[in-house]
Amino acid sequence: MVNHSLKLPMCRKRKLSHLWRAYPSVQNMGFITHLEAKKVFNLNGTIFCRYLLLGDVSAKAAHMLAQPEVSDFFSRLIQRVSPKSYKQALGEVHVTQKFLENFSGDQVRFLARSFAVPGNHLGQQSHGYRWPYGPVAIITPFNFPLEIPLLQLMGALYMGNKPTLKVDSKVSIVMEQMLRLLHYCGLPEEDVDFINSDGVTMNKFLLEAKPRMTLFTGSSRVAEKLAADLKGRIRLEDAGFDWKILGPDVQEVDYVAWVCDQDAHACSGQKCSAQSILFMHENWVSSELIPKMLCLAKRRKLEDLTIGPVLTVTTESMLEHIDKLLNIPGSKLLFGGEPLENHSIPKIYGALKPTAVFIPLTEILKSNNFDLVTKEIFGPFQIITDYKHDQLSMVLEACERMHAHLTAAVVSNDPLFLQEVLGKSVNGTTYAGIRARTTGAPQNHWFGPAGDPRGAGIGTPEAIKLVWSCHREIIYDIGPLPQHGEIPSAT
Amino acid sequence: MVNHSLKLPMCRKRKLSHLWRAYPSVQNMGFITHLEAKKVFNLNGTIFCRYLLLGDVSAKAAHMLAQPEVSDFFSRLIQRVSPKSYKQALGEVHVTQKFLENFSGDQVRFLARSFAVPGNHLGQQSHGYRWPYGPVAIITPFNFPLEIPLLQLMGALYMGNKPTLKVDSKVSIVMEQMLRLLHYCGLPEEDVDFINSDGVTMNKFLLEAKPRMTLFTGSSRVAEKLAADLKGRIRLEDAGFDWKILGPDVQEVDYVAWVCDQDAHACSGQKCSAQSILFMHENWVSSELIPKMLCLAKRRKLEDLTIGPVLTVTTESMLEHIDKLLNIPGSKLLFGGEPLENHSIPKIYGALKPTAVFIPLTEILKSNNFDLVTKEIFGPFQIITDYKHDQLSMVLEACERMHAHLTAAVVSNDPLFLQEVLGKSVNGTTYAGIRARTTGAPQNHWFGPAGDPRGAGIGTPEAIKLVWSCHREIIYDIGPLPQHGEIPSAT
Amino acid sequence: MVNHSLKLPMCRKRKLSHLWRAYPSVQNMGFITHLEAKKVFNLNGTIFCRYLLLGDVSAKAAHMLAQPEVSDFFSRLIQRVSPKSYKQALGEVHVTQKFLENFSGDQVRFLARSFAVPGNHLGQQSHGYRWPYGPVAIITPFNFPLEIPLLQLMGALYMGNKPTLKVDSKVSIVMEQMLRLLHYCGLPEEDVDFINSDGVTMNKFLLEAKPRMTLFTGSSRVAEKLAADLKGRIRLEDAGFDWKILGPDVQEVDYVAWVCDQDAHACSGQKCSAQSILFMHENWVSSELIPKMLCLAKRRKLEDLTIGPVLTVTTESMLEHIDKLLNIPGSKLLFGGEPLENHSIPKIYGALKPTAVFIPLTEILKSNNFDLVTKEIFGPFQIITDYKHDQLSMVLEACERMHAHLTAAVVSNDPLFLQEVLGKSVNGTTYAGIRARTTGAPQNHWFGPAGDPRGAGIGTPEAIKLVWSCHREIIYDIGPLPQHGEIPSAT
Amino acid sequence: MVNHSLKLPMCRKRKLSHLWRAYPSVQNMGFITHLEAKKVFNLNGTIFCRYLLLGDVSAKAAHMLAQPEVSDFFSRLIQRVSPKSYKQALGEVHVTQKFLENFSGDQVRFLARSFAVPGNHLGQQSHGYRWPYGPVAIITPFNFPLEIPLLQLMGALYMGNKPTLKVDSKVSIVMEQMLRLLHYCGLPEEDVDFINSDGVTMNKFLLEAKPRMTLFTGSSRVAEKLAADLKGRIRLEDAGFDWKILGPDVQEVDYVAWVCDQDAHACSGQKCSAQSILFMHENWVSSELIPKMLCLAKRRKLEDLTIGPVLTVTTESMLEHIDKLLNIPGSKLLFGGEPLENHSIPKIYGALKPTAVFIPLTEILKSNNFDLVTKEIFGPFQIITDYKHDQLSMVLEACERMHAHLTAAVVSNDPLFLQEVLGKSVNGTTYAGIRARTTGAPQNHWFGPAGDPRGAGIGTPEAIKLVWSCHREIIYDIGPLPQHGEIPSAT
Repeated sequence: MVNHSLKLPMCRKRKLSHLWRAYPSVQNMGFITHLEAKKVFNLNGTIFCRYLLLGDVSAKAAHMLAQPEVSDFFSRLIQRVSPKSYKQALGEVHVTQKFLENFSGDQVRFLARSFAVPGNHLGQQSHGYRWPYGPVAIITPFNFPLEIPLLQLMGALYMGNKPTLKVDSKVSIVMEQMLRLLHYCGLPEEDVDFINSDGVTMNKFLLEAKPRMTLFTGSSRVAEKLAADLKGRIRLEDAGFDWKILGPDVQEVDYVAWVCDQDAHACSGQKCSAQSILFMHENWVSSELIPKMLCLAKRRKLEDLTIGPVLTVTTESMLEHIDKLLNIPGSKLLFGGEPLENHSIPKIYGALKPTAVFIPLTEILKSNNFDLVTKEIFGPFQIITDYKHDQLSMVLEACERMHAHLTAAVVSNDPLFLQEVLGKSVNGTTYAGIRARTTGAPQNHWFGPAGDPRGAGIGTPEAIKLVWSCHREIIYDIGPLPQHGEIPSAT
Repeated sequence: MVNHSLKLPMCRKRKLSHLWRAYPSVQNMGFITHLEAKKVFNLNGTIFCRYLLLGDVSAKAAHMLAQPEVSDFFSRLIQRVSPKSYKQALGEVHVTQKFLENFSGDQVRFLARSFAVPGNHLGQQSHGYRWPYGPVAIITPFNFPLEIPLLQLMGALYMGNKPTLKVDSKVSIVMEQMLRLLHYCGLPEEDVDFINSDGVTMNKFLLEAKPRMTLFTGSSRVAEKLAADLKGRIRLEDAGFDWKILGPDVQEVDYVAWVCDQDAHACSGQKCSAQSILFMHENWVSSELIPKMLCLAKRRKLEDLTIGPVLTVTTESMLEHIDKLLNIPGSKLLFGGEPLENHSIPKIYGALKPTAVFIPLTEILKSNNFDLVTKEIFGPFQIITDYKHDQLSMVLEACERMHAHLTAAVVSNDPLFLQEVLGKSVNGTTYAGIRARTTGAPQNHWFGPAGDPRGAGIGTPEAIKLVWSCHREIIYDIGPLPQHGEIPSAT
Repeated sequence: MVNHSLKLPMCRKRKLSHLWRAYPSVQNMGFITHLEAKKVFNLNGTIFCRYLLLGDVSAKAAHMLAQPEVSDFFSRLIQRVSPKSYKQALGEVHVTQKFLENFSGDQVRFLARSFAVPGNHLGQQSHGYRWPYGPVAIITPFNFPLEIPLLQLMGALYMGNKPTLKVDSKVSIVMEQMLRLLHYCGLPEEDVDFINSDGVTMNKFLLEAKPRMTLFTGSSRVAEKLAADLKGRIRLEDAGFDWKILGPDVQEVDYVAWVCDQDAHACSGQKCSAQSILFMHENWVSSELIPKMLCLAKRRKLEDLTIGPVLTVTTESMLEHIDKLLNIPGSKLLFGGEPLENHSIPKIYGALKPTAVFIPLTEILKSNNFDLVTKEIFGPFQIITDYKHDQLSMVLEACERMHAHLTAAVVSNDPLFLQEVLGKSVNGTTYAGIRARTTGAPQNHWFGPAGDPRGAGIGTPEAIKLVWSCHREIIYDIGPLPQHGEIPSAT
Repeated sequence: MVNHSLKLPMCRKRKLSHLWRAYPSVQNMGFITHLEAKKVFNLNGTIFCRYLLLGDVSAKAAHMLAQPEVSDFFSRLIQRVSPKSYKQALGEVHVTQKFLENFSGDQVRFLARSFAVPGNHLGQQSHGYRWPYGPVAIITPFNFPLEIPLLQLMGALYMGNKPTLKVDSKVSIVMEQMLRLLHYCGLPEEDVDFINSDGVTMNKFLLEAKPRMTLFTGSSRVAEKLAADLKGRIRLEDAGFDWKILGPDVQEVDYVAWVCDQDAHACSGQKCSAQSILFMHENWVSSELIPKMLCLAKRRKLEDLTIGPVLTVTTESMLEHIDKLLNIPGSKLLFGGEPLENHSIPKIYGALKPTAVFIPLTEILKSNNFDLVTKEIFGPFQIITDYKHDQLSMVLEACERMHAHLTAAVVSNDPLFLQEVLGKSVNGTTYAGIRARTTGAPQNHWFGPAGDPRGAGIGTPEAIKLVWSCHREIIYDIGPLPQHGEIPSAT
């Protein structure tokens, strides 16, 4: 799908050859300490320490991505390899650009802010630092070819690590171009090792190179294997079966329907934050919500990629899944359930119309149905159900039993209802209020799962510090010694 | 070794039966959410929310431990099961008491402090929380029967979790008594499940109960197995081969020798922070340091447990290890190297005089020697070596290659030397300055390894928050809606 | 009113003589620096640094105040000098006790936490501290004889200052006893200078002693004079004309009426947070709110001091004020408006039944009425008014025009209404939600005005740090020097 | 001195007329609340909230200032009105540019980060905010025509205030041009009122307009008057008599001499951080320091403005001051002490060669000399003295007695010496270590005095938050109500 003859007007200056070496030797993954990290670079005649250099690279790269010809270039490049509308691709570039702005100037060194507390006697003080791991690895998926790898890569660098980056090879051309741009903006070539390989090779590489930490964004299956292989030296942002609950206060039906359509169907449902299940309070059942969602789903079309190929699930297996669900008593197809028509999408990919299946709440909770209903389909597909006012605890139980806790939405402006649902749930990124959504997380708030010590976040200062550094404490104890005169007895 | 007829004068009031049930059922490990956590308890006629209740329990328990008869009771109880001097045991009680003082009053709720950042439009705000995991497990070792389990247990409770606690059964009597004291101070009995079992049973329990997080303090071997078994849902504080580097500025030799003796030999070397290797700058070689250390080692005696039984390594295997080391060219025995005499310590335990072996630095770094030299012996044993001024990078390489990075000490007041060594090392708790030590971490600074994403800390607000909670972000988005009038197009 | 024969069973041990010297010489107000502050005290055989000493004093004093006989002693002592019910006096003791618990153990040193940020080159780092002012003064009023002086005094000490304390001499016996208790708990006698004088003498003292900072809690008139006299080296917590707004959602009328009664009439309205004006949304007008408030006001009686003497305003001047208000067109007396009966309160104090006067909103806003209506009466008196839904901006304008911005309440659970009112107001301590009140601030949240750079807070870590310390930044720049070889040219 | 025919190529687009209105009416100084502050602007077709708008303006303005032609334009414009070398002027532009980079993207909203703490019961939470004052005023001096007004102005805007800005009218052309650039980058014209007036008019304006807060940077005399006039509603960054102490460890004499020359003479000593007094440890007396400083002082020349006119002190009054000092026993002229030659500097300004006068320490401390010696001369002039090892406490006493505590330097790498001096001093911006200086503060650390509650800082997130916002706490208390059933009794 990648066209290597693509023109790259703005970043021809550097050779990429060293980036594509198949296998960086382990020796190259030297540990970069905080102080080594300050070694100077002579860039355009100015001396920079590492933190300042990265602040400068970020400011320059942000400014370049803000140029219409550059953002357009990357948006179209994303579209070539990952099926999404131009606006979705542009959104990815925009979030990346804003993220880079956020770490301009002194903001990289501000991330390295430490604290100190007085000790027990004169001359003693404890200093708490966020410290780099050293050699680390980053593995990212196909659905956000620019945003996920760039944000995690820069986070790793900002905190002083030496990263090796692997992007899903179907889409790695995007990050390859972005690295050229970063080099052009002053990032030293030796800062990042970029590897292009299949998963098996990468797994072998990790076991041999023993990075101190590996960030994996991708499927739960691979995540669990890696977690065991690497004995837990890992941070994960794996799939999510993301839920939305509509509360008792029915309002703004048009708006809520539109948000549901976007959450379930944008990027053909191939966001890890996509709406997988919708719980409607009984008050919503009599509203126009479902009919409106149906209308909105029908607006989507292949030409502008508002609906498109599903890269990891075939049409057949999605239809099979739908059939199984429709065998559950009380279930029914609300819309969709058919293959896309008039397309040239290869058989190895999926092609399904936006689809919603209704399942009664009591059936969902049955232990023989639960795993089937809450199986994540990484495509334009969702479950819809409803609940009576006194069934809220059943809804919360269902949410608690799901195995991943990534994003969630509680659509209500009722403060006591919000308090109840938010207090009894754990999803890492949870939107609350009448404008709540499950997708579209920007760079200004945390995005990631909660409830799992392996969970990784992305985007914010907190995410960068928690994922890409560990706590270290140095206790200075310089004296003077107490004037006791004699040596205390042994204990 | 536990005498169950021991009198427990201050906490007879409650029955312990439910604590000793062999196997808490999984259903009991219900998820305690932040808001559920606030459910009120009617304690002595006053209504408390959970945070306040725990602040109150902590204040009361701290006050009780401050009573001489109570601290004496616990110190002697610790001595009965864990071989250490009275002063060392009392120190453990003191740290525990201060820790509880630190979380008196409102300080538990202050731990739950969250932050918020304005959103993109009126009515939007993102709130970042430290959120509980829910059901968690805690497994702690024999060497600190009170401090380690109590601090981790309270940390887990403070952050809103529901912990199951297992202490090494040789010493669990101490924590059993402490739980009675906590109940007496108002801790609800259903807050903690206390399990008494061997490791195999506990492993089986964990695999079945699937706690969201497990804190393990203990040997590296078990740690690695658990990390794989639990697929990384774990925080570890495992063994450390802890180093001390003496810098070029020789001063206060008496004091430094005394600190070395304490670091290497207190608790018979059975602290995970014990000094395992000492790197002396050449300037120290001609000082009286080693002879003074020898004198101090000789002061230690079995009667007051300043030297005593080694619980996890036999005398025989320690002597064997020493023999292997002495085969390395240039090595020599500096002191010790013999079994303790005139004792009734059973054969299954170890009994060794404080011992130090010199190995040349160049030999340590050889790949066929490195693993042998840096093998952790959990007893009164250390390696000593020296380095020339231009060999500092070899010392740093040795420190970097060690597989665990727990505590360390850089004994120097030379600011440029400190900068060099601290910047190029990663140990989690690192003491720096002429008074630097490796052991004796109190409750007011972080104690734990660094450089490993699985690393756990203990003691401070940072440790509690990082180990016992995860980041969650709730984005409130209550409106009003923009006055656009029409639904945007799909993307 | 003070009975000096009062028995003080628990704190007879120390002489108070030095505390009552009329005029501490300026030389005694030596500057205590952070490091001097660490000088050791030998207390009961243990060595403490200042931070630890104060943590220890706080823990012990908290424990003593938690003893029923001690809290009862202080509650009754407060009642002897400040007219309030036993429960209100006990509440003051309770808040003080919890505050002291909050700064037990290491929490005083945790307040002194600093931060550091990497510099521009190797060896450079900037450290930001909260630094003490040195010699400071504290002046506190009659209405909270224990809570206000104790909390501010300890805050000043915690941050490393050397305070001189003056409490209103009508009530200073309470703090005199508390100081004895603190000495008993280990506070060094030379830490605090306690001065007993009239205001004129104190003013003269301040001008001569030139404290680096003076905290004044009391009337606006004195506050403004002091601010000019001391050229702004001051923090103020002066009077407040505190407002409450009832939103459109009428609910829980009984509860809201009870809160209004407490806010307006507890301590006979002599709290700086007392409800001075109530704005009712038109939806509340037809509710039972006003009749219920009337009933509740009538329950108050002199015997238990639920209503009692007003110390700073005479009955006559209050009645005169009411008469003036009743001349405003549309105004009416809702309840009260008469002197208390059957009492022996001296003429120099006030004695008024709980009183409420209704004034139309449009009249309040008129420039010739505004100052009259918003004049603070430090007694059991309030203004009540109502507003139509489209008059909210007038209500907000009235709140903005008031000259002090201390406490406020927005009684509503409507999120959009709360957003509107909170976003357009500035009061420092603002309660929001159906349970909102204006009085009864505890030690766990900030209490103080906002919108004024001289505003002081009380109670929380933030308040202590902002009031009792200033920002200092030390930039370490130890080298090594750049290897340029030659001296740069002059600039 | 201002040439209004100066060409302003890049910012001709907007009319400045409204900025130069002599007197903004008070009504225009409306209060901007946090939520009003979010009102949207339609800028280039995109909707921004205030925080995002300001982040965007900052990113754009930073990028423009990074363009060589723009930074050159501003550097030369600064040189036209403020006598300093090109490199010093460029440094001012550079700091401004980096500051703007620091608040790009989301960083303005991150400044508004608030915190929340759980309350006493379900539904209660306290939220702590940094809240804007509303209408504020900024008054800045001649010596940094761009950096000081721009950094304070943006800080005021970032925190949500509505500022009126007055820059010393001799140099206000620089900020007038900068405002045009900000407007070009998207700053709404109504955000800032820019007033051009003399001091008397401004004083009258402040008394009438009653801004909630006024930031004044300038002379101590005016500062004290303003503080009284405005009753302390002020933050000050007034003059400093800044000291440097050389410690016992003599090293890097060339470097230290060069730093002294820059600190005392750059901008002809017209920085509020300029080195006013130098205390040399006796070990330095025999070094080449003073001769080297003399050499360096002689390099300075009028042509490149490395020495130049003194704007606020005449030559005559400086010579007179020197004469008075030379009357002190033991004093001597080290270098300088003569007027500049061959120049056309008008008589109303000063023109002095770089000058240093030695005064014995014991004489400095005498009460009849102290005020004379520590009088700040805002020109190329310094006092030099020396001290014996046991006279350090006299040096510290001298530093403590100085009335302002702005910048300071402790030139030593001896950790115990640094600890002693730093712990016993209070200057707000203190450099420590062998590379310590007193001038040249960048944007990445705090710059401002300490020890005075009126002290203002500049540059960093802490400075912006402390100067331009106040603490507000909103306590949400939404219920549910306790299920007690009946109304509690009155208290």
